Amino acid sequence: MNKILIFGVGLIGGSIALSTKKSGIASDIVGVGRNQDNLNDAIKLKLIDRTSQELNKDIAEAHIIIIATPVAQFSSILKTIQPHLSSHTIITDVGSTKTSVIESAKEILGSQYSQFIGSHPIAGSEKHGATAAHIDLFKGKNVILTPDQDTSPRAKEVIELLWKNAGAIVSNMSHGDHDKIFSTISHLPHLLAFSLVDMITQRTNANELLKFAASGFKDFTRIAASSPEMWKDITLANREFILEDIKHFENQIKLLKEAIEQEDAKKILALFENASKTRSEWSR
Amino acid sequence: MNKILIFGVGLIGGSIALSTKKSGIASDIVGVGRNQDNLNDAIKLKLIDRTSQELNKDIAEAHIIIIATPVAQFSSILKTIQPHLSSHTIITDVGSTKTSVIESAKEILGSQYSQFIGSHPIAGSEKHGATAAHIDLFKGKNVILTPDQDTSPRAKEVIELLWKNAGAIVSNMSHGDHDKIFSTISHLPHLLAFSLVDMITQRTNANELLKFAASGFKDFTRIAASSPEMWKDITLANREFILEDIKHFENQIKLLKEAIEQEDAKKILALFENASKTRSEWSR
Repeated sequence: MNKILIFGVGLIGGSIALSTKKSGIASDIVGVGRNQDNLNDAIKLKLIDRTSQELNKDIAEAHIIIIATPVAQFSSILKTIQPHLSSHTIITDVGSTKTSVIESAKEILGSQYSQFIGSHPIAGSEKHGATAAHIDLFKGKNVILTPDQDTSPRAKEVIELLWKNAGAIVSNMSHGDHDKIFSTISHLPHLLAFSLVDMITQRTNANELLKFAASGFKDFTRIAASSPEMWKDITLANREFILEDIKHFENQIKLLKEAIEQEDAKKILALFENASKTRSEWSR
Repeated sequence: MNKILIFGVGLIGGSIALSTKKSGIASDIVGVGRNQDNLNDAIKLKLIDRTSQELNKDIAEAHIIIIATPVAQFSSILKTIQPHLSSHTIITDVGSTKTSVIESAKEILGSQYSQFIGSHPIAGSEKHGATAAHIDLFKGKNVILTPDQDTSPRAKEVIELLWKNAGAIVSNMSHGDHDKIFSTISHLPHLLAFSLVDMITQRTNANELLKFAASGFKDFTRIAASSPEMWKDITLANREFILEDIKHFENQIKLLKEAIEQEDAKKILALFENASKTRSEWSR
Protein backbone atom coordinates (compact mmCIF):
# COMPACT_ATOMS: atom_id res chain seq x y z
CA MET A 1 0.00 0.00 0.00
CA ASN A 2 1.49 3.30 -1.17
CA LYS A 3 0.66 6.44 0.72
CA ILE A 4 1.04 9.71 -1.16
CA LEU A 5 0.87 13.01 0.68
CA ILE A 6 0.09 16.06 -1.43
CA PHE A 7 0.55 19.60 -0.15
CA GLY A 8 -1.63 21.84 -2.29
CA VAL A 9 -4.41 19.95 -4.09
CA GLY A 10 -4.91 22.47 -6.91
CA LEU A 11 -4.69 22.09 -10.68
CA ILE A 12 -1.28 20.40 -10.60
CA GLY A 13 -1.55 18.57 -7.25
CA GLY A 14 -5.08 17.37 -8.00
CA SER A 15 -4.18 16.16 -11.49
CA ILE A 16 -1.15 14.17 -10.33
CA ALA A 17 -3.35 12.69 -7.56
CA LEU A 18 -5.83 11.48 -10.18
CA SER A 19 -3.22 9.76 -12.32
CA THR A 20 -1.41 8.09 -9.39
CA LYS A 21 -4.73 6.70 -8.24
CA LYS A 22 -5.70 5.45 -11.67
CA SER A 23 -2.33 3.84 -12.40
CA GLY A 24 -2.35 2.02 -9.07
CA ILE A 25 0.86 3.68 -7.81
CA ALA A 26 -1.05 4.98 -4.82
CA SER A 27 -3.76 3.46 -2.72
CA ASP A 28 -3.96 6.12 -0.01
CA ILE A 29 -3.83 9.68 -1.26
CA VAL A 30 -3.83 12.29 1.46
CA GLY A 31 -4.35 15.99 0.80
CA VAL A 32 -3.06 18.91 2.86
CA GLY A 33 -4.00 22.52 2.25
CA ARG A 34 -4.95 25.84 3.79
CA ASN A 35 -8.21 26.18 1.88
CA GLN A 36 -10.85 23.85 3.37
CA ASP A 37 -13.34 24.48 0.54
CA ASN A 38 -10.75 23.41 -1.98
CA LEU A 39 -9.96 20.25 0.04
CA ASN A 40 -13.69 19.47 0.20
CA ASP A 41 -13.85 19.83 -3.60
CA ALA A 42 -10.84 17.50 -3.91
CA ILE A 43 -12.57 14.81 -1.85
CA LYS A 44 -15.89 15.25 -3.66
CA LEU A 45 -14.09 14.93 -7.01
CA LYS A 46 -12.22 11.86 -5.69
CA LEU A 47 -8.83 13.45 -6.35
CA ILE A 48 -7.75 12.49 -2.83
CA ASP A 49 -8.96 9.77 -0.47
CA ARG A 50 -8.88 11.96 2.61
CA THR A 51 -7.34 14.98 4.28
CA SER A 52 -4.66 14.60 6.92
CA GLN A 53 -5.90 14.36 10.51
CA GLU A 54 -2.51 13.48 12.02
CA LEU A 55 -0.05 15.28 9.80
CA ASN A 56 3.14 14.10 11.56
CA LYS A 57 2.02 10.48 11.26
CA ASP A 58 1.07 10.90 7.60
CA ILE A 59 4.45 12.50 6.88
CA ALA A 60 6.28 9.65 8.63
CA GLU A 61 4.30 7.00 6.73
CA ALA A 62 4.28 8.63 3.27
CA HIS A 63 6.01 6.86 0.40
CA ILE A 64 5.93 9.97 -1.74
CA ILE A 65 5.39 13.59 -0.69
CA ILE A 66 4.47 16.06 -3.41
CA ILE A 67 4.72 19.78 -2.64
CA ALA A 68 2.38 21.47 -5.13
CA THR A 69 1.81 24.79 -3.37
CA PRO A 70 3.00 28.20 -4.61
CA VAL A 71 6.83 28.32 -4.48
CA ALA A 72 6.84 30.84 -1.61
CA GLN A 73 5.39 28.21 0.77
CA PHE A 74 7.98 25.58 -0.15
CA SER A 75 10.47 26.24 2.68
CA SER A 76 7.94 26.34 5.49
CA ILE A 77 6.33 23.09 4.28
CA LEU A 78 9.71 21.40 4.05
CA LYS A 79 10.44 22.52 7.63
CA THR A 80 7.16 20.93 8.73
CA ILE A 81 8.11 17.70 6.97
CA GLN A 82 11.77 17.40 7.99
CA PRO A 83 11.47 16.33 11.68
CA HIS A 84 9.16 13.41 10.78
CA LEU A 85 10.70 12.31 7.48
CA SER A 86 11.45 8.59 7.19
CA SER A 87 14.49 7.48 5.22
CA HIS A 88 12.22 5.73 2.69
CA THR A 89 10.12 8.73 1.68
CA ILE A 90 10.77 10.45 -1.64
CA ILE A 91 9.87 14.15 -1.97
CA THR A 92 9.30 16.27 -5.04
CA ASP A 93 7.87 19.69 -5.84
CA VAL A 94 6.30 21.20 -8.97
CA GLY A 95 7.72 24.75 -8.93
CA SER A 96 8.48 26.83 -12.01
CA THR A 97 11.95 27.77 -10.75
CA LYS A 98 14.35 25.18 -9.44
CA THR A 99 17.58 26.70 -8.06
CA SER A 100 15.96 28.44 -5.08
CA VAL A 101 13.90 25.34 -4.32
CA ILE A 102 16.96 23.09 -4.35
CA GLU A 103 18.97 25.47 -2.19
CA SER A 104 16.14 25.39 0.37
CA ALA A 105 15.89 21.61 0.19
CA LYS A 106 19.63 21.18 0.77
CA GLU A 107 19.56 23.54 3.71
CA ILE A 108 16.44 22.15 5.38
CA LEU A 109 16.82 18.44 4.63
CA GLY A 110 20.58 18.22 5.22
CA SER A 111 21.74 14.62 4.78
CA GLN A 112 18.21 13.63 3.72
CA TYR A 113 18.43 15.93 0.64
CA SER A 114 19.17 12.77 -1.38
CA GLN A 115 15.49 11.87 -0.96
CA PHE A 116 14.40 15.03 -2.78
CA ILE A 117 14.19 15.67 -6.53
CA GLY A 118 12.80 18.82 -8.13
CA SER A 119 10.09 18.51 -10.81
CA HIS A 120 8.69 21.12 -13.17
CA PRO A 121 5.64 19.98 -15.12
CA ILE A 122 5.18 22.29 -18.13
CA ALA A 123 1.43 22.20 -17.99
CA GLY A 124 0.14 25.49 -16.69
CA SER A 125 -3.27 26.96 -17.26
CA GLU A 126 -5.07 30.12 -16.21
CA LYS A 127 -7.50 27.79 -14.41
CA HIS A 128 -6.65 26.76 -10.89
CA GLY A 129 -7.95 24.88 -7.87
CA ALA A 130 -9.07 21.28 -7.40
CA THR A 131 -12.05 21.72 -9.74
CA ALA A 132 -9.65 22.42 -12.63
CA ALA A 133 -7.72 19.16 -12.13
CA HIS A 134 -8.01 16.49 -14.80
CA ILE A 135 -6.31 13.21 -15.55
CA ASP A 136 -4.96 14.25 -18.95
CA LEU A 137 -3.27 17.43 -17.77
CA PHE A 138 0.24 16.01 -18.20
CA LYS A 139 -0.42 13.78 -21.20
CA GLY A 140 2.27 14.46 -23.81
CA LYS A 141 3.57 17.42 -21.79
CA ASN A 142 7.19 17.94 -20.77
CA VAL A 143 8.16 17.40 -17.15
CA ILE A 144 11.68 18.40 -16.20
CA LEU A 145 13.49 16.76 -13.29
CA THR A 146 16.54 18.48 -11.80
CA PRO A 147 18.58 15.82 -9.97
CA ASP A 148 22.21 16.43 -9.02
CA GLN A 149 25.09 14.29 -7.72
CA ASP A 150 23.46 14.08 -4.27
CA THR A 151 20.08 12.84 -5.50
CA SER A 152 19.51 9.15 -4.78
CA PRO A 153 18.91 6.82 -7.75
CA ARG A 154 15.68 5.75 -6.06
CA ALA A 155 14.36 9.31 -5.90
CA LYS A 156 15.02 9.64 -9.64
CA GLU A 157 13.28 6.33 -10.42
CA VAL A 158 10.23 6.89 -8.25
CA ILE A 159 9.52 10.42 -9.45
CA GLU A 160 10.24 9.61 -13.10
CA LEU A 161 7.70 6.78 -12.83
CA LEU A 162 5.19 9.11 -11.16
CA TRP A 163 5.25 11.51 -14.13
CA LYS A 164 5.50 8.85 -16.83
CA ASN A 165 2.39 7.25 -15.40
CA ALA A 166 0.68 10.58 -15.82
CA GLY A 167 1.56 10.48 -19.53
CA ALA A 168 4.36 13.06 -19.35
CA ILE A 169 7.61 13.21 -21.35
CA VAL A 170 10.34 13.31 -18.71
CA SER A 171 13.67 15.11 -19.22
CA ASN A 172 16.54 15.67 -16.80
CA MET A 173 18.65 18.79 -16.54
CA SER A 174 20.58 20.73 -13.92
CA HIS A 175 18.59 23.27 -11.92
CA GLY A 176 20.79 26.01 -13.38
CA ASP A 177 20.12 25.00 -16.98
CA HIS A 178 16.43 24.72 -16.14
CA ASP A 179 16.21 28.21 -14.71
CA LYS A 180 18.22 29.72 -17.56
CA ILE A 181 16.03 28.08 -20.22
CA PHE A 182 12.74 29.01 -18.56
CA SER A 183 13.88 32.56 -17.95
CA THR A 184 14.06 32.99 -21.73
CA ILE A 185 11.05 31.04 -22.98
CA SER A 186 8.62 31.66 -20.13
CA HIS A 187 9.62 34.25 -17.55
CA LEU A 188 10.75 36.97 -19.98
CA PRO A 189 7.60 36.70 -22.16
CA HIS A 190 5.47 37.02 -19.01
CA LEU A 191 7.35 40.15 -17.94
CA LEU A 192 7.00 41.66 -21.42
CA ALA A 193 3.27 40.96 -21.52
CA PHE A 194 2.76 42.40 -18.01
CA SER A 195 4.82 45.45 -19.04
CA LEU A 196 2.88 46.14 -22.22
CA VAL A 197 -0.46 46.04 -20.41
CA ASP A 198 0.97 48.23 -17.62
CA MET A 199 2.16 50.74 -20.20
CA ILE A 200 -1.28 50.90 -21.77
CA THR A 201 -3.04 51.45 -18.43
CA GLN A 202 -0.88 54.55 -17.90
CA ARG A 203 -2.19 56.24 -21.04
CA THR A 204 -5.00 58.77 -20.68
CA ASN A 205 -6.77 56.99 -23.56
CA ALA A 206 -6.33 53.49 -22.09
CA ASN A 207 -10.02 52.66 -22.58
CA GLU A 208 -9.94 53.65 -26.23
CA LEU A 209 -6.75 51.61 -26.73
CA LEU A 210 -8.34 48.54 -25.16
CA LYS A 211 -11.53 49.07 -27.17
CA PHE A 212 -9.69 48.69 -30.46
CA ALA A 213 -7.23 45.99 -29.35
CA ALA A 214 -7.89 42.82 -31.32
CA SER A 215 -6.83 39.20 -31.63
CA GLY A 216 -3.07 39.80 -31.89
CA PHE A 217 -3.11 41.79 -28.66
CA LYS A 218 -5.37 39.20 -27.07
CA ASP A 219 -2.95 36.33 -27.62
CA PHE A 220 0.16 38.38 -26.92
CA THR A 221 -1.17 39.52 -23.54
CA ARG A 222 -3.00 36.37 -22.44
CA ILE A 223 -0.18 35.57 -19.99
CA ALA A 224 -0.49 39.06 -18.49
CA ALA A 225 -3.66 37.74 -16.79
CA SER A 226 -1.53 35.23 -14.83
CA SER A 227 -1.34 35.22 -11.03
CA PRO A 228 0.62 38.33 -9.89
CA GLU A 229 1.62 36.60 -6.62
CA MET A 230 3.01 33.54 -8.37
CA TRP A 231 4.89 35.60 -10.95
CA LYS A 232 6.32 37.95 -8.35
CA ASP A 233 7.76 34.85 -6.62
CA ILE A 234 9.13 33.42 -9.88
CA THR A 235 10.66 36.77 -10.85
CA LEU A 236 12.47 37.13 -7.55
CA ALA A 237 13.50 33.46 -7.35
CA ASN A 238 15.03 33.54 -10.84
CA ARG A 239 16.10 37.17 -10.86
CA GLU A 240 19.68 36.65 -12.05
CA PHE A 241 18.82 34.84 -15.27
CA ILE A 242 15.81 37.10 -15.79
CA LEU A 243 17.95 40.23 -15.48
CA GLU A 244 20.40 38.79 -18.03
CA ASP A 245 17.53 38.08 -20.42
CA ILE A 246 16.02 41.53 -19.93
CA LYS A 247 19.40 43.03 -20.88
CA HIS A 248 19.61 40.84 -23.99
CA PHE A 249 16.10 41.82 -24.93
CA GLU A 250 16.82 45.52 -24.38
CA ASN A 251 19.73 45.15 -26.77
CA GLN A 252 17.54 43.35 -29.30
CA ILE A 253 14.98 46.19 -29.15
CA LYS A 254 17.75 48.77 -29.46
CA LEU A 255 18.96 47.17 -32.71
CA LEU A 256 15.45 47.17 -34.13
CA LYS A 257 14.91 50.78 -32.99
CA GLU A 258 18.09 51.85 -34.77
CA ALA A 259 17.06 50.05 -37.95
CA ILE A 260 13.71 51.87 -37.84
CA GLU A 261 15.38 55.22 -37.15
CA GLN A 262 17.64 54.66 -40.15
CA GLU A 263 14.68 53.40 -42.23
CA ASP A 264 16.80 50.35 -42.98
CA ALA A 265 14.12 48.30 -44.75
CA LYS A 266 16.52 45.46 -45.53
CA LYS A 267 17.58 44.99 -41.93
CA ILE A 268 14.00 45.21 -40.61
CA LEU A 269 12.84 42.69 -43.18
CA ALA A 270 15.71 40.31 -42.34
CA LEU A 271 14.82 40.43 -38.62
CA PHE A 272 11.13 39.80 -39.28
CA GLU A 273 11.83 37.04 -41.79
CA ASN A 274 14.09 35.23 -39.35
CA ALA A 275 11.48 35.42 -36.59
CA SER A 276 8.55 34.55 -38.84
CA LYS A 277 10.32 31.53 -40.33
CA THR A 278 11.35 30.22 -36.91
CA ARG A 279 7.92 30.75 -35.37
CA SER A 280 6.08 29.23 -38.37
CA GLU A 281 8.27 26.13 -38.31
CA TRP A 282 7.81 25.78 -34.54
CA SER A 283 4.41 24.29 -34.07
CA ARG A 284 2.86 22.73 -31.06
CA MET B 1 -26.30 48.41 -61.30
CA ASN B 2 -23.36 48.96 -59.01
CA LYS B 3 -19.92 48.08 -60.23
CA ILE B 4 -17.30 47.43 -57.61
CA LEU B 5 -13.65 47.15 -58.57
CA ILE B 6 -11.41 45.35 -56.10
CA PHE B 7 -7.63 45.47 -56.30
CA GLY B 8 -6.31 42.47 -54.38
CA VAL B 9 -8.91 39.73 -53.93
CA GLY B 10 -7.35 38.14 -50.85
CA LEU B 11 -8.74 37.51 -47.37
CA ILE B 12 -9.97 41.09 -46.90
CA GLY B 13 -10.82 41.95 -50.52
CA GLY B 14 -12.53 38.61 -51.09
CA SER B 15 -14.57 38.83 -47.91
CA ILE B 16 -15.83 42.35 -48.61
CA ALA B 17 -16.69 41.19 -52.15
CA LEU B 18 -18.85 38.40 -50.70
CA SER B 19 -20.81 40.69 -48.40
CA THR B 20 -21.38 43.41 -51.02
CA LYS B 21 -22.74 40.75 -53.34
CA LYS B 22 -25.01 39.22 -50.72
CA SER B 23 -26.40 42.54 -49.50
CA GLY B 24 -27.18 43.64 -53.04
CA ILE B 25 -24.91 46.71 -52.91
CA ALA B 26 -23.03 45.38 -55.90
CA SER B 27 -24.19 43.57 -58.99
CA ASP B 28 -20.93 43.56 -60.93
CA ILE B 29 -17.86 42.75 -58.88
CA VAL B 30 -14.61 42.97 -60.78
CA GLY B 31 -11.32 41.66 -59.41
CA VAL B 32 -7.83 42.88 -60.26
CA GLY B 33 -4.64 41.19 -59.09
CA ARG B 34 -1.16 40.08 -59.98
CA ASN B 35 -1.71 36.46 -59.04
CA GLN B 36 -3.79 34.70 -61.71
CA ASP B 37 -4.24 31.52 -59.63
CA ASN B 38 -5.69 33.59 -56.81
CA LEU B 39 -8.07 35.37 -59.23
CA ASN B 40 -9.17 32.00 -60.63
CA ASP B 41 -9.91 30.86 -57.05
CA ALA B 42 -11.88 34.06 -56.48
CA ILE B 43 -14.06 33.37 -59.53
CA LYS B 44 -14.49 29.71 -58.67
CA LEU B 45 -15.55 30.67 -55.12
CA LYS B 46 -17.91 33.34 -56.57
CA LEU B 47 -16.21 36.11 -54.63
CA ILE B 48 -16.03 38.15 -57.84
CA ASP B 49 -18.09 38.05 -61.02
CA ARG B 50 -15.13 38.49 -63.32
CA THR B 51 -11.62 39.82 -63.74
CA SER B 52 -10.97 43.08 -65.51
CA GLN B 53 -10.31 42.81 -69.24
CA GLU B 54 -10.36 46.54 -69.92
CA LEU B 55 -9.02 48.05 -66.73
CA ASN B 56 -9.32 51.72 -67.77
CA LYS B 57 -12.98 51.20 -68.69
CA ASP B 58 -13.71 49.35 -65.43
CA ILE B 59 -12.03 52.13 -63.43
CA ALA B 60 -14.07 54.78 -65.25
CA GLU B 61 -17.33 52.91 -64.66
CA ALA B 62 -16.76 51.76 -61.08
CA HIS B 63 -19.06 53.04 -58.36
CA ILE B 64 -16.69 51.91 -55.64
CA ILE B 65 -13.00 51.02 -55.89
CA ILE B 66 -11.49 49.05 -53.02
CA ILE B 67 -7.71 48.82 -52.76
CA ALA B 68 -7.03 45.71 -50.70
CA THR B 69 -3.44 45.00 -51.69
CA PRO B 70 -0.40 45.24 -49.39
CA VAL B 71 0.16 48.90 -48.41
CA ALA B 72 3.36 49.16 -50.47
CA GLN B 73 1.37 48.81 -53.73
CA PHE B 74 -1.13 51.52 -52.79
CA SER B 75 0.56 54.46 -54.56
CA SER B 76 1.16 52.69 -57.84
CA ILE B 77 -2.44 51.45 -57.95
CA LEU B 78 -3.76 54.91 -57.20
CA LYS B 79 -1.61 56.28 -60.05
CA THR B 80 -3.19 53.68 -62.36
CA ILE B 81 -6.66 54.73 -61.25
CA GLN B 82 -6.27 58.51 -61.25
CA PRO B 83 -6.30 59.29 -65.03
CA HIS B 84 -9.58 57.39 -65.52
CA LEU B 85 -11.38 58.26 -62.30
CA SER B 86 -14.92 59.56 -62.74
CA SER B 87 -16.22 62.19 -60.33
CA HIS B 88 -18.84 59.73 -59.03
CA THR B 89 -16.49 56.95 -57.95
CA ILE B 90 -15.69 56.46 -54.25
CA ILE B 91 -12.36 54.88 -53.31
CA THR B 92 -11.25 53.23 -50.11
CA ASP B 93 -8.34 51.09 -48.94
CA VAL B 94 -7.95 48.56 -46.11
CA GLY B 95 -4.41 49.31 -44.90
CA SER B 96 -3.20 48.92 -41.30
CA THR B 97 -1.60 52.37 -41.29
CA LYS B 98 -3.44 55.44 -42.47
CA THR B 99 -1.25 58.57 -42.48
CA SER B 100 1.06 57.45 -45.28
CA VAL B 101 -1.91 56.21 -47.31
CA ILE B 102 -3.73 59.52 -46.97
CA GLU B 103 -0.65 61.54 -47.85
CA SER B 104 -0.31 59.47 -51.04
CA ALA B 105 -3.99 59.84 -51.85
CA LYS B 106 -3.86 63.64 -51.46
CA GLU B 107 -0.77 63.85 -53.63
CA ILE B 108 -1.97 61.53 -56.39
CA LEU B 109 -5.69 62.36 -56.50
CA GLY B 110 -5.33 66.12 -56.04
CA SER B 111 -8.76 67.76 -56.18
CA GLN B 112 -10.38 64.30 -56.40
CA TYR B 113 -9.01 63.38 -52.94
CA SER B 114 -12.52 64.15 -51.62
CA GLN B 115 -13.67 60.87 -53.23
CA PHE B 116 -11.26 58.86 -51.08
CA ILE B 117 -11.71 57.65 -47.50
CA GLY B 118 -9.32 55.38 -45.64
CA SER B 119 -10.63 52.20 -43.99
CA HIS B 120 -8.97 49.85 -41.56
CA PRO B 121 -10.91 46.67 -40.87
CA ILE B 122 -9.59 45.10 -37.63
CA ALA B 123 -10.01 41.57 -38.83
CA GLY B 124 -6.68 40.06 -39.61
CA SER B 125 -5.76 36.42 -39.68
CA GLU B 126 -2.65 34.40 -40.40
CA LYS B 127 -4.63 32.93 -43.31
CA HIS B 128 -4.54 34.76 -46.59
CA GLY B 129 -5.64 34.57 -50.22
CA ALA B 130 -9.06 34.25 -51.83
CA THR B 131 -9.60 30.77 -50.39
CA ALA B 132 -9.48 32.23 -46.84
CA ALA B 133 -12.24 34.78 -47.56
CA HIS B 134 -15.58 34.32 -45.80
CA ILE B 135 -18.73 36.35 -45.42
CA ASP B 136 -18.56 36.63 -41.62
CA LEU B 137 -15.00 37.98 -41.49
CA PHE B 138 -16.11 41.48 -40.46
CA LYS B 139 -19.14 40.51 -38.37
CA GLY B 140 -18.95 42.34 -35.04
CA LYS B 141 -15.42 43.54 -35.86
CA ASN B 142 -14.26 47.15 -35.67
CA VAL B 143 -13.66 49.03 -38.90
CA ILE B 144 -12.08 52.45 -38.55
CA LEU B 145 -12.64 55.17 -41.15
CA THR B 146 -10.27 58.14 -41.27
CA PRO B 147 -12.07 60.99 -43.04
CA ASP B 148 -10.82 64.58 -42.79
CA GLN B 149 -12.22 68.01 -43.69
CA ASP B 150 -11.64 67.32 -47.41
CA THR B 151 -13.51 64.01 -47.50
CA SER B 152 -16.88 64.31 -49.23
CA PRO B 153 -20.00 63.41 -47.20
CA ARG B 154 -20.90 60.92 -49.92
CA ALA B 155 -17.60 59.07 -49.56
CA LYS B 156 -18.25 58.75 -45.83
CA GLU B 157 -21.81 57.48 -46.37
CA VAL B 158 -21.01 54.99 -49.12
CA ILE B 159 -18.04 53.41 -47.35
CA GLU B 160 -19.75 53.35 -43.95
CA LEU B 161 -22.66 51.50 -45.58
CA LEU B 162 -20.24 49.10 -47.28
CA TRP B 163 -18.75 48.02 -43.93
CA LYS B 164 -22.02 48.08 -41.98
CA ASN B 165 -23.48 45.74 -44.56
CA ALA B 166 -20.59 43.41 -43.84
CA GLY B 167 -21.63 43.39 -40.17
CA ALA B 168 -18.82 45.66 -38.93
CA ILE B 169 -18.90 48.24 -36.15
CA VAL B 170 -17.78 51.47 -37.82
CA SER B 171 -15.83 54.21 -35.99
CA ASN B 172 -14.34 57.43 -37.29
CA MET B 173 -11.06 58.96 -36.19
CA SER B 174 -8.28 61.10 -37.63
CA HIS B 175 -5.51 59.24 -39.45
CA GLY B 176 -3.06 60.50 -36.82
CA ASP B 177 -5.12 59.16 -33.90
CA HIS B 178 -5.53 55.89 -35.77
CA ASP B 179 -1.83 55.41 -36.32
CA LYS B 180 -0.96 56.38 -32.75
CA ILE B 181 -3.50 53.93 -31.29
CA PHE B 182 -2.50 51.03 -33.51
CA SER B 183 1.17 51.64 -32.92
CA THR B 184 0.56 50.84 -29.26
CA ILE B 185 -1.97 48.00 -29.40
CA SER B 186 -0.85 46.26 -32.57
CA HIS B 187 2.45 47.38 -34.08
CA LEU B 188 4.48 47.40 -30.85
CA PRO B 189 3.30 43.91 -29.76
CA HIS B 190 4.24 42.58 -33.20
CA LEU B 191 7.73 44.08 -32.93
CA LEU B 192 8.16 42.64 -29.42
CA ALA B 193 7.08 39.19 -30.54
CA PHE B 194 9.37 39.28 -33.59
CA SER B 195 12.22 40.47 -31.34
CA LEU B 196 11.78 37.73 -28.75
CA VAL B 197 11.84 35.01 -31.39
CA ASP B 198 14.86 36.64 -33.06
CA MET B 199 16.67 36.72 -29.73
CA ILE B 200 16.01 33.02 -29.19
CA THR B 201 17.27 32.05 -32.64
CA GLN B 202 20.62 33.68 -31.80
CA ARG B 203 21.21 31.37 -28.83
CA THR B 204 23.43 28.35 -29.35
CA ASN B 205 20.74 26.28 -27.57
CA ALA B 206 17.87 27.67 -29.66
CA ASN B 207 16.54 24.19 -30.44
CA GLU B 208 16.48 23.22 -26.77
CA LEU B 209 14.73 26.49 -25.91
CA LEU B 210 12.06 25.89 -28.55
CA LYS B 211 11.68 22.27 -27.45
CA PHE B 212 10.59 23.30 -23.96
CA ALA B 213 8.59 26.39 -24.96
CA ALA B 214 4.94 25.85 -24.09
CA SER B 215 1.51 27.43 -24.37
CA GLY B 216 2.42 30.84 -22.93
CA PHE B 217 5.22 31.23 -25.47
CA LYS B 218 2.94 29.91 -28.21
CA ASP B 219 0.31 32.59 -27.72
CA PHE B 220 2.79 35.37 -27.01
CA THR B 221 4.67 34.72 -30.25
CA ARG B 222 1.77 33.79 -32.53
CA ILE B 223 1.98 37.21 -34.21
CA ALA B 224 5.70 36.65 -34.87
CA ALA B 225 4.59 34.27 -37.64
CA SER B 226 2.97 37.21 -39.47
CA SER B 227 4.04 38.31 -42.94
CA PRO B 228 7.52 39.90 -42.73
CA GLU B 229 6.91 41.95 -45.90
CA MET B 230 3.63 43.39 -44.62
CA TRP B 231 5.07 44.20 -41.20
CA LYS B 232 8.20 45.79 -42.66
CA ASP B 233 5.87 48.13 -44.62
CA ILE B 234 3.74 48.89 -41.54
CA THR B 235 6.83 49.54 -39.40
CA LEU B 236 8.28 52.00 -41.89
CA ALA B 237 4.95 53.67 -42.67
CA ASN B 238 4.22 54.29 -38.98
CA ARG B 239 7.79 54.67 -37.79
CA GLU B 240 7.35 57.88 -35.82
CA PHE B 241 4.63 56.62 -33.50
CA ILE B 242 6.30 53.22 -33.31
CA LEU B 243 9.61 54.79 -32.25
CA GLU B 244 7.79 56.75 -29.54
CA ASP B 245 6.15 53.56 -28.29
CA ILE B 246 9.42 51.63 -28.34
CA LYS B 247 10.93 54.36 -26.16
CA HIS B 248 7.99 54.21 -23.74
CA PHE B 249 8.30 50.45 -23.59
CA GLU B 250 12.06 50.63 -23.02
CA ASN B 251 11.35 52.89 -20.08
CA GLN B 252 8.70 50.51 -18.76
CA ILE B 253 11.17 47.61 -18.93
CA LYS B 254 13.85 49.72 -17.26
CA LEU B 255 11.55 50.39 -14.29
CA LEU B 256 10.78 46.69 -13.93
CA LYS B 257 14.47 45.81 -14.27
CA GLU B 258 15.34 48.23 -11.49
CA ALA B 259 12.63 46.80 -9.24
CA ILE B 260 14.04 43.30 -9.84
CA GLU B 261 17.62 44.47 -9.21
CA GLN B 262 16.47 46.01 -5.93
CA GLU B 263 14.39 42.90 -5.12
CA ASP B 264 11.48 45.29 -4.57
CA ALA B 265 8.75 42.67 -4.16
CA LYS B 266 6.07 45.26 -3.43
CA LYS B 267 6.75 47.22 -6.61
CA ILE B 268 6.95 44.09 -8.78
CA LEU B 269 3.69 42.81 -7.31
CA ALA B 270 1.97 46.17 -7.88
CA LEU B 271 3.03 46.19 -11.56
CA PHE B 272 1.85 42.62 -12.11
CA GLU B 273 -1.41 43.18 -10.25
CA ASN B 274 -2.22 46.24 -12.33
CA ALA B 275 -1.54 44.37 -15.58
CA SER B 276 -3.30 41.18 -14.51
CA LYS B 277 -6.42 43.04 -13.35
CA THR B 278 -6.62 45.09 -16.56
CA ARG B 279 -6.04 42.08 -18.81
CA SER B 280 -8.51 39.87 -16.90
CA GLU B 281 -11.23 42.50 -17.10
CA TRP B 282 -10.58 43.03 -20.80
CA SER B 283 -12.22 40.17 -22.55
CA ARG B 284 -13.04 39.66 -26.15
